[in-house]
Amino acid sequence: MELGTVFDTPPALLADRFKTLRYDEAERAVIVLDRRKYPFQTEYVALRTVEEVAQAIENMTVQGGPPLAYVAGLGLALAARDLDGSLTQAVVSLEQAARRLLATRPTADDLKMVVPAALERALNALRGGGDPHRAALDYVNGEIQRGNEVSRKCGQFAARLVNDGDQILTHCIAGAALCWMLWTAKQQGKTVTLVGCETRPYFQGARLTAASAREMDIEFKLITDGMSAHLMSTGRIDKFICAADRVTMDGHITNKIGTLTHAIAAHHFGKPFYVLGYDGPDPATATGADIPIEERSPDEIFFARGEAGTVRTAIHGIGGYYPAFDITPPHLISAIVTDKGIFAPHAVREYFSVSMA
Amino acid sequence: MELGTVFDTPPALLADRFKTLRYDEAERAVIVLDRRKYPFQTEYVALRTVEEVAQAIENMTVQGGPPLAYVAGLGLALAARDLDGSLTQAVVSLEQAARRLLATRPTADDLKMVVPAALERALNALRGGGDPHRAALDYVNGEIQRGNEVSRKCGQFAARLVNDGDQILTHCIAGAALCWMLWTAKQQGKTVTLVGCETRPYFQGARLTAASAREMDIEFKLITDGMSAHLMSTGRIDKFICAADRVTMDGHITNKIGTLTHAIAAHHFGKPFYVLGYDGPDPATATGADIPIEERSPDEIFFARGEAGTVRTAIHGIGGYYPAFDITPPHLISAIVTDKGIFAPHAVREYFSVSMA
Repeated sequence: MELGTVFDTPPALLADRFKTLRYDEAERAVIVLDRRKYPFQTEYVALRTVEEVAQAIENMTVQGGPPLAYVAGLGLALAARDLDGSLTQAVVSLEQAARRLLATRPTADDLKMVVPAALERALNALRGGGDPHRAALDYVNGEIQRGNEVSRKCGQFAARLVNDGDQILTHCIAGAALCWMLWTAKQQGKTVTLVGCETRPYFQGARLTAASAREMDIEFKLITDGMSAHLMSTGRIDKFICAADRVTMDGHITNKIGTLTHAIAAHHFGKPFYVLGYDGPDPATATGADIPIEERSPDEIFFARGEAGTVRTAIHGIGGYYPAFDITPPHLISAIVTDKGIFAPHAVREYFSVSMA
Repeated sequence: MELGTVFDTPPALLADRFKTLRYDEAERAVIVLDRRKYPFQTEYVALRTVEEVAQAIENMTVQGGPPLAYVAGLGLALAARDLDGSLTQAVVSLEQAARRLLATRPTADDLKMVVPAALERALNALRGGGDPHRAALDYVNGEIQRGNEVSRKCGQFAARLVNDGDQILTHCIAGAALCWMLWTAKQQGKTVTLVGCETRPYFQGARLTAASAREMDIEFKLITDGMSAHLMSTGRIDKFICAADRVTMDGHITNKIGTLTHAIAAHHFGKPFYVLGYDGPDPATATGADIPIEERSPDEIFFARGEAGTVRTAIHGIGGYYPAFDITPPHLISAIVTDKGIFAPHAVREYFSVSMA
């Protein structure tokens, strides 16, 4: 497989616009789209060290569960390229890099899978006299390709739940599965309106989701994060569909802060809430209480996006809370959609008993 | 009574800081604090014509149900100052001014009361050979004084519902009653934390409510509008208390968009939701369906506050919805607090049967 694989590929015709991350052989760097600026500015950042990769994840240059996991995996490949000294020193150095990368985002599920696996591939290569850099890189690129396939299938299953004329609420970034869902529904002749929450404090909805919808020529209505209940009560939202950063074995999900608020409102008004669960629940996470919620600095909610992200919107001399994610329990979820089909949330562990027809 | 009465007076010691509106005899103008800039900049705007007053209400220079009603009433007094021509012409001119002022904010309850009453006073004076300007002014200043008294009593009753250690969610501006509630609770030795939603798109919570809390030395935690459900689920919000732009005779309330979302979440998690209902329900509004919801231009949600309110946070080429208010039904409200005491929402019309002890 060629290096420089594209992740986050929505409909094929749009693929060129979505080169959100890749490893560049000539540059010897991980190249990522700066998600804090896109689509106002399309800027790519070259990350050349493990520390640069870790900081790009922490400071939101890279966003979204799978993309940040792949970037972290490529970060480990970076570490495996520049090894010197004894085998013992190399092992210590790789393990250090893995710890640094794993510490970036405690809530991320894919990160916990990709980084240890990339580490294992590199260590095995190292011990067997192979090329640890190439081993880690091949593994991550394979995961990216697998992820694209999972997104496509998950989105295609989700399109079965979309009706012509639907007004679909979503929250935070429209990931690859949501784009595939919208695109597939459109190909099936269904006209939908995507109602996107702006998603404070980073405005992912107003920027990234809105841009995806615009690219696909899907009607997009921006709302602020507090409007969902009212729009459900007045018939302007028919269903709520979003992705999850993690699905637990008993059907809890975690996603960007605000998701729980919409889920409770949808339940109150009898509107379905479908979760795009990609490749199913995390076998290592039994229930919602096992998901650590990342508490970010409240400083980040004192500002809105400005020319350089520096426009203050809050006064000085106050505190704040910034839990970056929330947890929605299975009784508030109507279905969890995966690459293997559509599951009842309380029975989502059936994912592991199903094989594709 | 002296002209230039101060409205929105929280605790006495803070009164000087809260001169949010007044009629200035020497300036021959209505002077208002520009709520779009406060507290980043403390700027007063002089409004000299009915049209200037109407625009100040429409463009959010003046905010909050009672203040904008008083400003509109003072606007009518302005119109009544500059009358010339025949009595018939004067009447037409005053009625025109009233229509313009009433058209500014369809959801506002107090506006519908103050402007017609000020008009009536002016017309009566005109027909009886009196001074219509003075008649309208005296009436509005009387209403401001009455409003201050209502706020104080409502806040004092609400303080009975506050416990030591409470973490109280609020939404949008902390009006006079909420300030009186917090201040009274504090005098009673209760320590509370106010958790304020930033309230997109105008950030009233991050600016105005935060400033009121800081002035009173009440601990303040800022959150984004989507965080309330999560914080209730994790024990960081004990109750939800906010004001209402209107209370209906059957216990529905309307308030800033987002209120319904928090109310549904509070109900889901069994947290009380208390509404500060000032001087009770509006006898002219039977139920929620009778409240018109102001739909503002979606352009306003494409921006965040910048140096001049011009920092764009959304991409171009998309649509949006901006209903400025929502309606919460009585079954989601735990109690409606007024200047006459604490009422069960479904029985809030009892307000008119109660006299003060």
